[in-house]
Amino acid sequence: MRRIRLINPNTTQAMTDACVEAIRPIFDEQTCLEGVAARSGPQSIEGHFDGALGAIGLLEAIAEDPLADGYIVACFDDTGLDAARCMVSAPVVGIGEAAFHLASMLANRFAVITTLSRSIPVIEDNLQRYGMGRRCAAVLSTNISVLDLESEEIDVESRMEEQISHALALGAEAIVLGCAGMTVMTKKLSDKFGIPVIDGVTAAATIVRGLAELGLKTSKVGGYAVPNPKTYSGLLSAFDPS
Amino acid sequence: MRRIRLINPNTTQAMTDACVEAIRPIFDEQTCLEGVAARSGPQSIEGHFDGALGAIGLLEAIAEDPLADGYIVACFDDTGLDAARCMVSAPVVGIGEAAFHLASMLANRFAVITTLSRSIPVIEDNLQRYGMGRRCAAVLSTNISVLDLESEEIDVESRMEEQISHALALGAEAIVLGCAGMTVMTKKLSDKFGIPVIDGVTAAATIVRGLAELGLKTSKVGGYAVPNPKTYSGLLSAFDPS
Amino acid sequence: MRRIRLINPNTTQAMTDACVEAIRPIFDEQTCLEGVAARSGPQSIEGHFDGALGAIGLLEAIAEDPLADGYIVACFDDTGLDAARCMVSAPVVGIGEAAFHLASMLANRFAVITTLSRSIPVIEDNLQRYGMGRRCAAVLSTNISVLDLESEEIDVESRMEEQISHALALGAEAIVLGCAGMTVMTKKLSDKFGIPVIDGVTAAATIVRGLAELGLKTSKVGGYAVPNPKTYSGLLSAFDPS
Amino acid sequence: MRRIRLINPNTTQAMTDACVEAIRPIFDEQTCLEGVAARSGPQSIEGHFDGALGAIGLLEAIAEDPLADGYIVACFDDTGLDAARCMVSAPVVGIGEAAFHLASMLANRFAVITTLSRSIPVIEDNLQRYGMGRRCAAVLSTNISVLDLESEEIDVESRMEEQISHALALGAEAIVLGCAGMTVMTKKLSDKFGIPVIDGVTAAATIVRGLAELGLKTSKVGGYAVPNPKTYSGLLSAFDPS
Amino acid sequence: MRRIRLINPNTTQAMTDACVEAIRPIFDEQTCLEGVAARSGPQSIEGHFDGALGAIGLLEAIAEDPLADGYIVACFDDTGLDAARCMVSAPVVGIGEAAFHLASMLANRFAVITTLSRSIPVIEDNLQRYGMGRRCAAVLSTNISVLDLESEEIDVESRMEEQISHALALGAEAIVLGCAGMTVMTKKLSDKFGIPVIDGVTAAATIVRGLAELGLKTSKVGGYAVPNPKTYSGLLSAFDPS
Amino acid sequence: MRRIRLINPNTTQAMTDACVEAIRPIFDEQTCLEGVAARSGPQSIEGHFDGALGAIGLLEAIAEDPLADGYIVACFDDTGLDAARCMVSAPVVGIGEAAFHLASMLANRFAVITTLSRSIPVIEDNLQRYGMGRRCAAVLSTNISVLDLESEEIDVESRMEEQISHALALGAEAIVLGCAGMTVMTKKLSDKFGIPVIDGVTAAATIVRGLAELGLKTSKVGGYAVPNPKTYSGLLSAFDPS
Repeated sequence: MRRIRLINPNTTQAMTDACVEAIRPIFDEQTCLEGVAARSGPQSIEGHFDGALGAIGLLEAIAEDPLADGYIVACFDDTGLDAARCMVSAPVVGIGEAAFHLASMLANRFAVITTLSRSIPVIEDNLQRYGMGRRCAAVLSTNISVLDLESEEIDVESRMEEQISHALALGAEAIVLGCAGMTVMTKKLSDKFGIPVIDGVTAAATIVRGLAELGLKTSKVGGYAVPNPKTYSGLLSAFDPS
Repeated sequence: MRRIRLINPNTTQAMTDACVEAIRPIFDEQTCLEGVAARSGPQSIEGHFDGALGAIGLLEAIAEDPLADGYIVACFDDTGLDAARCMVSAPVVGIGEAAFHLASMLANRFAVITTLSRSIPVIEDNLQRYGMGRRCAAVLSTNISVLDLESEEIDVESRMEEQISHALALGAEAIVLGCAGMTVMTKKLSDKFGIPVIDGVTAAATIVRGLAELGLKTSKVGGYAVPNPKTYSGLLSAFDPS
Repeated sequence: MRRIRLINPNTTQAMTDACVEAIRPIFDEQTCLEGVAARSGPQSIEGHFDGALGAIGLLEAIAEDPLADGYIVACFDDTGLDAARCMVSAPVVGIGEAAFHLASMLANRFAVITTLSRSIPVIEDNLQRYGMGRRCAAVLSTNISVLDLESEEIDVESRMEEQISHALALGAEAIVLGCAGMTVMTKKLSDKFGIPVIDGVTAAATIVRGLAELGLKTSKVGGYAVPNPKTYSGLLSAFDPS
Repeated sequence: MRRIRLINPNTTQAMTDACVEAIRPIFDEQTCLEGVAARSGPQSIEGHFDGALGAIGLLEAIAEDPLADGYIVACFDDTGLDAARCMVSAPVVGIGEAAFHLASMLANRFAVITTLSRSIPVIEDNLQRYGMGRRCAAVLSTNISVLDLESEEIDVESRMEEQISHALALGAEAIVLGCAGMTVMTKKLSDKFGIPVIDGVTAAATIVRGLAELGLKTSKVGGYAVPNPKTYSGLLSAFDPS
Repeated sequence: MRRIRLINPNTTQAMTDACVEAIRPIFDEQTCLEGVAARSGPQSIEGHFDGALGAIGLLEAIAEDPLADGYIVACFDDTGLDAARCMVSAPVVGIGEAAFHLASMLANRFAVITTLSRSIPVIEDNLQRYGMGRRCAAVLSTNISVLDLESEEIDVESRMEEQISHALALGAEAIVLGCAGMTVMTKKLSDKFGIPVIDGVTAAATIVRGLAELGLKTSKVGGYAVPNPKTYSGLLSAFDPS
Repeated sequence: MRRIRLINPNTTQAMTDACVEAIRPIFDEQTCLEGVAARSGPQSIEGHFDGALGAIGLLEAIAEDPLADGYIVACFDDTGLDAARCMVSAPVVGIGEAAFHLASMLANRFAVITTLSRSIPVIEDNLQRYGMGRRCAAVLSTNISVLDLESEEIDVESRMEEQISHALALGAEAIVLGCAGMTVMTKKLSDKFGIPVIDGVTAAATIVRGLAELGLKTSKVGGYAVPNPKTYSGLLSAFDPS
């Protein structure tokens, strides 16, 4: 029996629940999924500032339960992902990176559709660091904030479709949804446009389960080495890396 | 019930069998794995020339059974991978790319240990095309050919260890085994060096199963569009893309 | 007396003849040009799938006559080029790469105009591997297939001009014609737009003749090393690399 | 009268004091320098984990006094730098980036000498994001932790010199000191090796003062847009971006 | 007392004067600024040809006075910058590079607005060499020549604004003015668009003064090594590198 | 009858003569080769400074005879190449670029062996600008100056061989000789190491002749546009671009 923990670095429980719901159908009874939202942190994460604020809640959630068989960081900006990897031996997968990697095996070029334009540089930096920049035709935004994605006053769907049409014109062959809150639109958009639409939440779930099954763990040599308790003592009370 | 076909572009049945054996423990009863070796082609694939020769056998094997739910191309050079994607809607995953993508989620930098030096430029080209070049510290070779990997006259193990030590000195935090024939060494080497050792065969298996579960398919827009029967008629007798 | 063999990886004799005709005026009596179409293979090569199918015909044509002083691979996708280099000591030049290299010595940025959009990722991958991506402003397509280039029902010319105007707006200073079948338009388009228009067929001819004159040969160290007969025995009957 | 605030994201007061002392001689009476250490956070910052923990202390320090004329982030990993820029209009400069930029105007290639190997991937990621990767010959480490830099039991100096010699052999023409704690060695090492040795603390000071003098401010369009109070309310009590 | 020499590689005295005027308010009495125009050379520098012609005048001006504490090369193409660095120990800063580096600390992406389109490849080459290409959203031109910037017949302002609007649409968050002659527009454009507008002249002034204050000098190891008098004897009469 | 002019940007007649001698055997009676050394300029060109000084002599030599059918810039640093292209319609080819392009069609990776280490950054910058950086395994130097290449006191040959061995260990499959003065060693080194050794002088000759035969000219759109006489009047007396 494997235990995978999904951690939502923002504090919006509804978003955490939606993520868990999206993953459940994939996991069989061999894999137990637990979803938690950060106890403290921003309500949603859009851009550099929210991301830095959200990282702590993520690390605290990991410190409280560092012995799961795998972790999902459920924020498309992959907030705090590298830091989280330093805390555990189990694999840790971000929903942004997972979507990029899978998309690049289904299409020569993909595009990312995100919420606000302030998230674009964060995503572009991640693409660059992961090496995925070459495979991404464009990072586009709808200018609808995360918390407005379910607003009834905004025609979210038509704005998404507008950006997808734009992406196709730029040479994209698949679409990556750039926000955990967009997961519910996956099938509808894929059917409408006849192209793969990749949602990072389920992408990360399938990858982390795979890594856990294969017994693959985060490297403890180099950049993800176990932190030195001397430097952070007292900050994450529950955390004992030894 | 899902059906995944592993196709070995070389004709060595023992290698195909070893791949199937490595994957079996991962797949549950929901996923049926079928392994086939190319009917014709090189005995092993090392470098540009063998790769071009091996692609046809791969495409023929797909033409004979184009309706599986996913395909694994079981050659580390990802021989014929892009061409195979044009033939089917199901996802097609190469063992080289799968290993690179998973490694980059476990380590800041990985190294690839391959067989002969003639394979190095092929692998470096692939890394470049996939965008994974930035994450790879080095592609190193043992100078032991694929068919000699099981030779008793060569100390394969110590030559592998030599190259892994070299890779660590160059900043690698994880090792990717650059040949399907090295799969059996995975656990031993990982234990010895205390770092993740990624085998592409099982990496591809877990990724393609995930893609199939998520209902994600190869994009038919752009570079993987359905081939035009006018151009290739008569070449792959069984193949009807419509 | 030097002997250069042009090999067309597709089976359309008319295209082979047109290539030979385009080159003849350049070569003096010191250089003998022989043009052959692949015996088997696709009628035209557009994208990943056709390219993989076409490679075998190319390699067979080389195996039948491996002692020429130079080879031209007459397909803009440079199908099978790296594999061909493994088979001979003489230089082997692809029409795609030749056009890119010459264009980059005439213009700060060039654009490629190709046939169908499915060829774009193949050409972009080649540009990337050759290092020429930085010099290419865009790869654009007319959406006219190779075999329709001579159709009287399609206004090929105006569609080419449309894309050239687009390329100039994107900063291109020269145009590379992305298909052997476009060779005949070279002069007309260059005159009309007042910019260099580079055709890969004649570009490759002049480069391979130059390499042969200089006595330069394909490196047999590393990636183009002589293939190991054990791996491919029986596949290319006439081929003996020794 | 201009006011520049230096914020040390770690809590070690001695390091903050040393930074202030290094900068003082540069600033004339027109520029007032204030140095503060984060109230909470790690004692030193080495690698991904410490960096994520340290960002909050930095942001809190900025929230407490968001109206200075310029900010220096005094951690070589440029911890929380992008997030800090979202909070203020004034320029914010990291000591890592400052050192890279200045070094690239004094030398064709520079090398970075940092403390522990776990910091190398963080620095390499930054170099990549800033575009400075091309100008950096290598990121090397002494394997001496920040807090041990003043240890009397370790021959810090000879280990630094060892790595500088290594860097020169790799083509570096200047050295960037990869830790705020190394500032005191700048002159001695520069004299000994006869090459520029760049310390990020003073580099950042001179750049941020210059930006302030020129009236240049952080862009509020795009990635550094003013945060949305709805998302982070209650997290940084003192912070009001309006 | 520090002495900084600004050298304008073109011979237009009015442009030199405007540069000096722009810098004066920044420098306090500790720093003496001297501005000189090249004695011979082009009247303005636009593109590759003018740049090569202008380099000699720059080097002559340095040879005449090689003992200043810092040099500014006042041409946005950074004409002759690397050669100038070989001649002196003091820091030498180009106005193009200075603007790029500062812009990248104020914005995730910047755009450059230059004069004629022929300057675009020169600037793009520089961005590439400096590593700043990744941070630049676009290099755009107004198609107004340097000498026409003060023409009353051309609506320079509205053409600049047109290009700035274009740049913002492409994701730029700040604007770099790509010509020394545009310095006077800095404040007006910044106010109008509410974004940072960076002028290279003052950018270089603040950086070179900072380098001089820190005692940082041009590396004499590697690419900026002291020239060998044997190779250039008699060319720059006044120049004695010893 | 075609007329190709080789211009040596340095003033050493012996080097010019050796270049002409190397090319003569390649050109048939249809192509007339003229070799000239710059009237003024450095005796040899090593690094940034010499290169800037040498450009003027090159441009003067072109101004005196701007109607040849093609030009060779006979300095491995490709000194003044881009400026020269602005002056004429005929193709202009540098010996550095020519060697890189041909090498990349003979080998997966090449290495450059140059004279002094100060030339390395110039060559690396060129490789980067041309896009050839990806294909170059290393730029190495013998630390023998151009003028000492024929010294009898230095064992030039063994130092060259030492660097070639080094290059092979770094993965190079071919060698580019990084100085016009090394042309005479080409055959000997190629025979000794059994790999292609590419000399830029003959490489450029074969490429420029080919461009001339094909009627391909330098683009006059964009970066190589005809210079504006207003900017440079009086500088190159003989030059009239109209």
